[in-house]
Amino acid sequence: MLDQARGVYIVAQTPFQENGAIDLESVDSLTDFYFSHGANGLTVLGVAGEANKLTPAESLAVASRFIARARNKPVVVGVSNSSVAQMAELTGQVMDAGAAGVMIAPPGGLRTEQEVLSYFEAVFDRIGNVPTVLQDFPFSTGTWMSVPVIGQLIERHPQIQAVKEEDLPSITKITKLRALPGRRVAILTGNNAMFLPLEMGRGIDGPMAGFSHPEMLSQVYALYTAGRVDEAHAVFDRYLPLLSYENQSQWGVAVRKEIMKRRGAIKHAGMRRPGPKLDATDHAEIDLLLERLKRTLAEAG
Amino acid sequence: MLDQARGVYIVAQTPFQENGAIDLESVDSLTDFYFSHGANGLTVLGVAGEANKLTPAESLAVASRFIARARNKPVVVGVSNSSVAQMAELTGQVMDAGAAGVMIAPPGGLRTEQEVLSYFEAVFDRIGNVPTVLQDFPFSTGTWMSVPVIGQLIERHPQIQAVKEEDLPSITKITKLRALPGRRVAILTGNNAMFLPLEMGRGIDGPMAGFSHPEMLSQVYALYTAGRVDEAHAVFDRYLPLLSYENQSQWGVAVRKEIMKRRGAIKHAGMRRPGPKLDATDHAEIDLLLERLKRTLAEAG
Amino acid sequence: MLDQARGVYIVAQTPFQENGAIDLESVDSLTDFYFSHGANGLTVLGVAGEANKLTPAESLAVASRFIARARNKPVVVGVSNSSVAQMAELTGQVMDAGAAGVMIAPPGGLRTEQEVLSYFEAVFDRIGNVPTVLQDFPFSTGTWMSVPVIGQLIERHPQIQAVKEEDLPSITKITKLRALPGRRVAILTGNNAMFLPLEMGRGIDGPMAGFSHPEMLSQVYALYTAGRVDEAHAVFDRYLPLLSYENQSQWGVAVRKEIMKRRGAIKHAGMRRPGPKLDATDHAEIDLLLERLKRTLAEAG
Amino acid sequence: MLDQARGVYIVAQTPFQENGAIDLESVDSLTDFYFSHGANGLTVLGVAGEANKLTPAESLAVASRFIARARNKPVVVGVSNSSVAQMAELTGQVMDAGAAGVMIAPPGGLRTEQEVLSYFEAVFDRIGNVPTVLQDFPFSTGTWMSVPVIGQLIERHPQIQAVKEEDLPSITKITKLRALPGRRVAILTGNNAMFLPLEMGRGIDGPMAGFSHPEMLSQVYALYTAGRVDEAHAVFDRYLPLLSYENQSQWGVAVRKEIMKRRGAIKHAGMRRPGPKLDATDHAEIDLLLERLKRTLAEAG
Repeated sequence: MLDQARGVYIVAQTPFQENGAIDLESVDSLTDFYFSHGANGLTVLGVAGEANKLTPAESLAVASRFIARARNKPVVVGVSNSSVAQMAELTGQVMDAGAAGVMIAPPGGLRTEQEVLSYFEAVFDRIGNVPTVLQDFPFSTGTWMSVPVIGQLIERHPQIQAVKEEDLPSITKITKLRALPGRRVAILTGNNAMFLPLEMGRGIDGPMAGFSHPEMLSQVYALYTAGRVDEAHAVFDRYLPLLSYENQSQWGVAVRKEIMKRRGAIKHAGMRRPGPKLDATDHAEIDLLLERLKRTLAEAG
Repeated sequence: MLDQARGVYIVAQTPFQENGAIDLESVDSLTDFYFSHGANGLTVLGVAGEANKLTPAESLAVASRFIARARNKPVVVGVSNSSVAQMAELTGQVMDAGAAGVMIAPPGGLRTEQEVLSYFEAVFDRIGNVPTVLQDFPFSTGTWMSVPVIGQLIERHPQIQAVKEEDLPSITKITKLRALPGRRVAILTGNNAMFLPLEMGRGIDGPMAGFSHPEMLSQVYALYTAGRVDEAHAVFDRYLPLLSYENQSQWGVAVRKEIMKRRGAIKHAGMRRPGPKLDATDHAEIDLLLERLKRTLAEAG
Repeated sequence: MLDQARGVYIVAQTPFQENGAIDLESVDSLTDFYFSHGANGLTVLGVAGEANKLTPAESLAVASRFIARARNKPVVVGVSNSSVAQMAELTGQVMDAGAAGVMIAPPGGLRTEQEVLSYFEAVFDRIGNVPTVLQDFPFSTGTWMSVPVIGQLIERHPQIQAVKEEDLPSITKITKLRALPGRRVAILTGNNAMFLPLEMGRGIDGPMAGFSHPEMLSQVYALYTAGRVDEAHAVFDRYLPLLSYENQSQWGVAVRKEIMKRRGAIKHAGMRRPGPKLDATDHAEIDLLLERLKRTLAEAG
Repeated sequence: MLDQARGVYIVAQTPFQENGAIDLESVDSLTDFYFSHGANGLTVLGVAGEANKLTPAESLAVASRFIARARNKPVVVGVSNSSVAQMAELTGQVMDAGAAGVMIAPPGGLRTEQEVLSYFEAVFDRIGNVPTVLQDFPFSTGTWMSVPVIGQLIERHPQIQAVKEEDLPSITKITKLRALPGRRVAILTGNNAMFLPLEMGRGIDGPMAGFSHPEMLSQVYALYTAGRVDEAHAVFDRYLPLLSYENQSQWGVAVRKEIMKRRGAIKHAGMRRPGPKLDATDHAEIDLLLERLKRTLAEAG
């Protein structure tokens, strides 16, 4: 179950062909890439997965392909939608297809704790008993949830088995979430893992984040859980310049896809329109950062 | 074509059964109600039509039923969606079903004119040559479009044949829109028609608005276009207390549905969850306002 | 004390000269105008009073002049400021000058109940024991306060003696506020009094609102409190077209000042820059609405 | 003049005593600290300087003290204010006190290009001929300015001599700003210098940013301008974990002040209320990051 989730959940990109159609073959190669670089599970159809650019049929096709290729490794599917009815429909379909659970962030415009609570009451009435990751990403959604409200949601809805925490600062909020009384849920963190080793120190169960070099996430996780804190930081710091470069919202996703393509994980780097495109200067910066990373890793042995 | 649109386009409610399922029979009675009270056309699946609570299949079912029942009277279908792909899919389906055109508002988060222009380029590339009402409703969408940007959109995209103007103040913006050089588009106004006779004076082609008493909209429109300005104002003013009461966002929609039910236009008044519910105090206020309206109309003869 | 506040608190304009300087003589004539049309008190330096365009010295000069001219009638001074230190300074000065109390709205960007509570703790620690009107105007401030949070603020801070309620719908929130257990505070309502008779029915103690025809506010209040509900509505309805016209944000303030000038209450109608200006079309609309009002009042006798 | 600005402008903290009063002696020690670590100029009363918590008199006292202690090195003073009148007053005062210029960000709520242009017209009419840094920090202000609008502002207002660019991604926007035709302005970047070496590569004239270790900013700037790009990156990367830790909004400012205190630059670390406070866990993280930085620097020689 998701409340036992530990380790590295990679937030997956959605690969497109040059004409903008879904590239299902790249879903396979991408899945293999993630698992061969240490992923314990995947989260698909998130914000960085361009979920909000797909049709419902495409969403189901992409999620199903990831699930099939993951061969019983857990796949969490983002189903957030301004329409609860549409969310419920996709939830039923992906659970039937074998998803480990769904991830739900509140829509924008919920302005008081009561509105947040009412919203999730409507959601869980509708989707029923489905393992759920509650996503706390206020800078993207525009809806803020305090720690006490998250605590109330956990208490009311046994479906919530994990929280993806990506408010800022995440670190202080993790400490407060971990101190909540009652049922234990997994806490996984996002924000592109920009604070991963510190978040490990605050008590998370692992990252739920995207990065072109997922081996960093798995190494940091493994070292930290083995008590080798300083080495975990050292590995993290080597990748930080590139990680930070990818941490530039949707433009950063374009960068990540370009690097994933260079690494052979997907066939085409393009994002579906409307979305950013990289130019020659951007490519030169990526060259520079990758070259510097290569040297740094070589020096570290 | 929509650029010839004149008269009263009623923004239609979506009727639900008590269990939250779509009530297609009430779509029929509601359509009849609107046309028997002077509507020239309908706009369905708008914000007040709870469009964002439906599944794609439900959206298509509701729109198709309105279109069928309207018997060749024009029906505009709201297709705004954070996913352009999903918007395009629904657009194709409702145009096949006989819609007169679609209505599109930009999603939230477009922060510069360039972003607005890029967004609609992606939209029209995808949906093709479909008659479109551009909806300018910034307080709902969170995206602001200046008059020059709207002018550029009209110039670039011949698909835009009408503008639904509901920025505030609408009146001054209408004057500026009407003064735009170039191709003429229809200007229809929303904001629940709160400024209808003044907007007529500013040069609109009619209201595109919802109200439990659509006969007011059609009377005001008819009187004003016949040059009987003072009488148009007089009719409008009689209904204004109730109109203003219904002009309270989603809560006002709940009121409107209650009154529509009392008038026999739909079978159930409830909104789909999550949404507001009326209590006894609210009902008593509605009683009072309807009673006062009745007397006012009786006194006016 | 403000928790005994009853009746009509007019939200006052700030008059400027043609060159944008403060017009203190018009403060006198405006004060006289308000009180001669039935005001029980004034609220100065509110949003509609262009408070955020003044220097601290100007704020004090304007508030002091209103207070002096009001001759012991209560004047509440808006002191909301992103700087608590600046708010505290002005609070001390206007209380010394004889203000009945201050009005405070939270700044934008308070996103959780805890943040709202912390903010007001800092405020009241700083300003001390000053009678305060808590302003709940989320569409202007961007900060939402639920009824339970307002209840907690009242419980924690005896300084809060009144709430100016202008969330939407105001009517349902008033009912919930009135039902709060504990210490009674006055509830006065804003939103330009657009729902005044209904709000009276929900239990408010009076309007705290601006209007070019304050005699409407005082008549409606007097009739309603005398149990003459139907007459209160009738008076209200006669003015509603003009009231609604003035209820168009800062543009509506420009209209109101123009009408106040025509009525002799202030010498110049202009707003301080940056702000809206009226053109010939706008003036013609005002002519029309005033002419219609005159006739309506004449017909009513 | 500011359009010749080159090098490192440190965004200064505002030091407070334990009781929340301004600590002017620490202004002196802080100024000395910045200049002894390579600053070419200072920017005071910015967002990270808690400017919005001061009274006007405090703002002037703080700015004057920095200016006096800087002994003719340039000091830019943040004067952004929702009141243009108040901004103009402070501007006059600090220019009299010897400021090199002022920094102005638009207030929130300017929603179209026309509104941005009108706002700055009102501003410059009022403040006159004062050298100005235009601050483009939309995630803080809530007002977005596209490159063409910034270009128009530069063209219309010769007072704008520099742009502080902190939109995200900053790098691509810098490239577009640098490509603007017309008068050259300095481009300095913020965002806590999170992308400094890449921004140097995009053509900026230096950072305008805060950091507890300003020697990093000056070293990176010096190395990069000397053509030693790779070394510039290497220095930057060593400090990046700490830089990123301080890049957590107002909470990051609390961290920065704590480290500045440890380094002897200021006497007390506290922020004025309402604001974040650090606890034992936070302090332990700071210990860890500083210890790691020390070792990294030692290894690098």
